[in-house]
Amino acid sequence: MSESHHKTTSDIDYILISDAVGSLVQDVYHSANVQFPNAPLHSELYPFIQDKDSLIEALHDAEDYHSGVIATLINQEMHQYAKDFCADKGLFYQNILADILFDMEKRLDKAPSQKPGIRHQLDDHYYQRIEALEFAVLNDDGQHPNRFEEADIVLLGVSRTSKTPLSMYLANLGYKVANLPLLPESTLPDVIYDINPDKIIGLTNDVNVLNKFRRERLRSYGIEDPNIYSDDSRIHEELDYANDIYAKLNCPIINVADRSIEETATLVLMFLQKNNQL
Amino acid sequence: MSESHHKTTSDIDYILISDAVGSLVQDVYHSANVQFPNAPLHSELYPFIQDKDSLIEALHDAEDYHSGVIATLINQEMHQYAKDFCADKGLFYQNILADILFDMEKRLDKAPSQKPGIRHQLDDHYYQRIEALEFAVLNDDGQHPNRFEEADIVLLGVSRTSKTPLSMYLANLGYKVANLPLLPESTLPDVIYDINPDKIIGLTNDVNVLNKFRRERLRSYGIEDPNIYSDDSRIHEELDYANDIYAKLNCPIINVADRSIEETATLVLMFLQKNNQL
Repeated sequence: MSESHHKTTSDIDYILISDAVGSLVQDVYHSANVQFPNAPLHSELYPFIQDKDSLIEALHDAEDYHSGVIATLINQEMHQYAKDFCADKGLFYQNILADILFDMEKRLDKAPSQKPGIRHQLDDHYYQRIEALEFAVLNDDGQHPNRFEEADIVLLGVSRTSKTPLSMYLANLGYKVANLPLLPESTLPDVIYDINPDKIIGLTNDVNVLNKFRRERLRSYGIEDPNIYSDDSRIHEELDYANDIYAKLNCPIINVADRSIEETATLVLMFLQKNNQL
Repeated sequence: MSESHHKTTSDIDYILISDAVGSLVQDVYHSANVQFPNAPLHSELYPFIQDKDSLIEALHDAEDYHSGVIATLINQEMHQYAKDFCADKGLFYQNILADILFDMEKRLDKAPSQKPGIRHQLDDHYYQRIEALEFAVLNDDGQHPNRFEEADIVLLGVSRTSKTPLSMYLANLGYKVANLPLLPESTLPDVIYDINPDKIIGLTNDVNVLNKFRRERLRSYGIEDPNIYSDDSRIHEELDYANDIYAKLNCPIINVADRSIEETATLVLMFLQKNNQL
């Protein structure tokens, strides 16, 4: 890029091209980008690029900004056009799916359908996810213990063990999740001892993490003094109560301290797979 | 693979290796796999592969099954080892992130941190997502109209316009979403006219889709006769009522018929970006 009208620093470092909604190409970009903390990289998403005209428009923007191009293009003609264009202009190009599709094609001796966006097609799995999300919202916070039997996964835990976000994350993967808060003062619904114990997971957390969480929650209510909710011995009492129940149920226990929702969800699914529940 | 003890057809076609939870490598694999409908391909996920011993174990399984290897490995030494191993054994290998990381490194003149799993690190964005998910569950189904002002996005819609799953999907991306069902019989909370109209989205659906959905819901209750809930003129009345409100609010309208949650979510975010609300 010797011509003077070209920018030397890019306003857009990477152009992300998808023939569908673009969530995958964004995830790939983000996963790489987080490896360079505090380094400013800018990207621009071009979703629903399904014809050559809109592809050419996106590629011309890449040329103008001298951006790299990261794509998830299913159509082989579109892919080849983008690849040749970028090679010609000296731009980085990667189509995340191209090599894998080519390998699958060889392995199956069968051509791919080349239909964009079918990852999000309205198939049985899709409706299962919708149903799972609605189930998880309805069965958050132990609202309907009589529906635990229907659930694929029942999460138990004291306050601030990520029950709600974990339920929604797992539901988004298609699992019907119910969660039940454990509190020494409230009576546990009997149904918990009747359902299949292999689908129950006990969540716990470190005392210091719980204490920090709870102080922050109180602070958000304008309460600065420590009180029973964030008191260490109270937290111990709650955790002991929970551990007693987990022992009675003989369920796996996951400590969510220092674990992201994704990590905890992976552990939950590994436990259930081990128990042949999925 | 001429040796007779090797299987000619694989039990595991692809081994998916991740140094973290593996959601990205699974998404990439799934996006390619759905392009071969009805073709049986099997994969096995190896998550949390963070040292050479566990990597070697996974690669030996790939050798045994003559599987392709798809990876998201951040560590360059691990990547190089897997790449050389697969080249040596004639196995397909792709590390989704390798080329992109290399290009970013050149562009930034800076080495990547090589820390696995930091996409899911417990940073500000992470806590924002947790908060958003809790907000979305609390503010599902118009439970707390007084909190609409806090929301990043307020979704309006008649029954069966995917309000709940759409809210949870957007919340999982970090947006605080409230949704409000529209029903001619119920009074709209006044607050809807006080909040910033640029963050309101009206959801609608096709009459025939709504009719089908509702008949199915009734059938699940054991009611086979058509009744007022699935009656076309009733559905028209509800949609007209909703359209009147959308016109008064001057908000964008999205028809969710034939759209997946991901597609609708992308449209919602595009509208809000256009209004400079994100």
